[in-house]
Amino acid sequence: MGNAAEAIDVERLAAALGRGERRALARAITLAESTRPDHRAAAETLIARLLPSAGKSLRLGISGAPGVGKSTFIEAFGLAMVRGGHRLAVLAVDPTSKRSGGSILGDKTRMGELARHPGAFIRPSPAGRMLGGVARRTREAIILCEAAGFDRIIIETVGVGQSETAVADLVDLFLLLIAPGGGDDLQGIKKGIVELADLLVVNKADGDLAPAARRAVADYRHALALLRPATEGPPDVFAVSALEGRGIAELWRTVEERGHALEASGVQTRRRAAQARAALWHEIDEGLREAFKADAAVARHLAELEARVAAGKLAPAVAAHDALDLFLEGARARQSGRRS
Amino acid sequence: MGNAAEAIDVERLAAALGRGERRALARAITLAESTRPDHRAAAETLIARLLPSAGKSLRLGISGAPGVGKSTFIEAFGLAMVRGGHRLAVLAVDPTSKRSGGSILGDKTRMGELARHPGAFIRPSPAGRMLGGVARRTREAIILCEAAGFDRIIIETVGVGQSETAVADLVDLFLLLIAPGGGDDLQGIKKGIVELADLLVVNKADGDLAPAARRAVADYRHALALLRPATEGPPDVFAVSALEGRGIAELWRTVEERGHALEASGVQTRRRAAQARAALWHEIDEGLREAFKADAAVARHLAELEARVAAGKLAPAVAAHDALDLFLEGARARQSGRRS
Repeated sequence: MGNAAEAIDVERLAAALGRGERRALARAITLAESTRPDHRAAAETLIARLLPSAGKSLRLGISGAPGVGKSTFIEAFGLAMVRGGHRLAVLAVDPTSKRSGGSILGDKTRMGELARHPGAFIRPSPAGRMLGGVARRTREAIILCEAAGFDRIIIETVGVGQSETAVADLVDLFLLLIAPGGGDDLQGIKKGIVELADLLVVNKADGDLAPAARRAVADYRHALALLRPATEGPPDVFAVSALEGRGIAELWRTVEERGHALEASGVQTRRRAAQARAALWHEIDEGLREAFKADAAVARHLAELEARVAAGKLAPAVAAHDALDLFLEGARARQSGRRS
Repeated sequence: MGNAAEAIDVERLAAALGRGERRALARAITLAESTRPDHRAAAETLIARLLPSAGKSLRLGISGAPGVGKSTFIEAFGLAMVRGGHRLAVLAVDPTSKRSGGSILGDKTRMGELARHPGAFIRPSPAGRMLGGVARRTREAIILCEAAGFDRIIIETVGVGQSETAVADLVDLFLLLIAPGGGDDLQGIKKGIVELADLLVVNKADGDLAPAARRAVADYRHALALLRPATEGPPDVFAVSALEGRGIAELWRTVEERGHALEASGVQTRRRAAQARAALWHEIDEGLREAFKADAAVARHLAELEARVAAGKLAPAVAAHDALDLFLEGARARQSGRRS
């Protein structure tokens, strides 16, 4: 980074974001993704300053296994949005990207037309990041995009990792993309992902696959009605052809209607408050764990305790008790200055 | 309690458990359920002593909404087990019992024949306990039952609360009981419970409902094949009539076969090691949170931080950072004695 020594002018960055400048947005997200303490501090100041003007977007999660046509779908769906006058930010989350060489491509060629549209901002997944920070970084990126005037946000995940639950806790609606082949097409999709979905979208309803897609919609509707508690309401299942653009307008209309309903009913406000509270506790838990693991006395004994617990030689509650005593009594002894 | 002042003779209790005495087992579980420090200490000593002889049972989770015929099913299923020469312990987990007056009855009349059988031990749910401790208490009760020679353990839950995930993490196989009505019968069942199930059991396959039950089995099989990743393997769905005893023997055979397969393949050992490790970290996280909340400086500011986060006025990461600083820097400052 050429500007490593350069002081970060948070005020200037905030002003540029307020004008919707996408270079400023890209820079701000890079700050939020950084692990450098000065970057983190600047990002936190920036977020704190922008928070009051954030929240004014419909936040969508879109997931689907590799090969389901996710890029083509997001391009078609996104183009419908930006042509409808919205400003759309697409944020990719792919914790597998380093390992697998990237299920979500880092370049912008895969959504060429959308990427070139002045109403769209596409942010590829940062390579090689750990899962732990996905929720925080994505939460902050959403706020930055909203501050830059983007009123539709898509968080894209690959459905094979553990990030979907985290992402579902960040969005208003969660869409799962599937191919017309049923369970075989869920191969690799993590158990429980289908349960997270507010809308199921059967893609590739074109050419030879069109009849299979129609059957798949009926099958999924039936299956969801059977397996989902009736209190959840009837499931939404759509057939689309991202390739031919069929069904996209109807799906978009439904998404917008559901978004408005969530807002009008106050559900969105309540859910976002609950999401923020959950994020707070998640951050606290992570911070406590970090401090716990960094404690010298804990570090000396933890591996052995864990091994004995896993081997069934020590009860988890007892091992936890012992390790917590090392951590907390150390602090208490230091506090009273009575440590020998 | 009349014996409150009486010292707890852990050695004697352990020996009585080793002889399979059910009064000793009942007393040991009561100790493990207690929140009194001397009881907890005795329970932890007892568990530590018994752990090497534990683990030799097939652990089953059984859940289902009120009205599905859970008691009748467990009685029929349990009688098949004890008549087959097994010793069966049934542990009920019902965190709603205080609030709702008890979905799982506290008395033993509901499983009269099983309760009177010398091979069975039925432990009703402790009333009015909080969810937080369900996992720990149940984990300890399982070990106590195993030490007392019970080789089949059923953990019974009502499927409407949050305890199912915790219970699924304690058992080898999870059975979900449903009535033949599809989604309507899942009313009240928490989203995600169906996903947890290793076996789906359609009960009430008798009388007028028999044809509906047969259809339900086919429907559920189809739905699960569609919604569950193919890697999970074909789902097991059974129709039984607990009332008439039909299908029980077949279901029991399948459960035993799957139990043996889990053991023979080493999956059970690996899964239990992972469960124990997860329980350790769960206990550590809970202990850390408790200490965090009990910190005076944190307690003074936490409610306000949480309210500002929920209102969207403060970023979760920033609030967490602030609260963690209060907790950790307090300890650090005390440690170096430089606190003014």
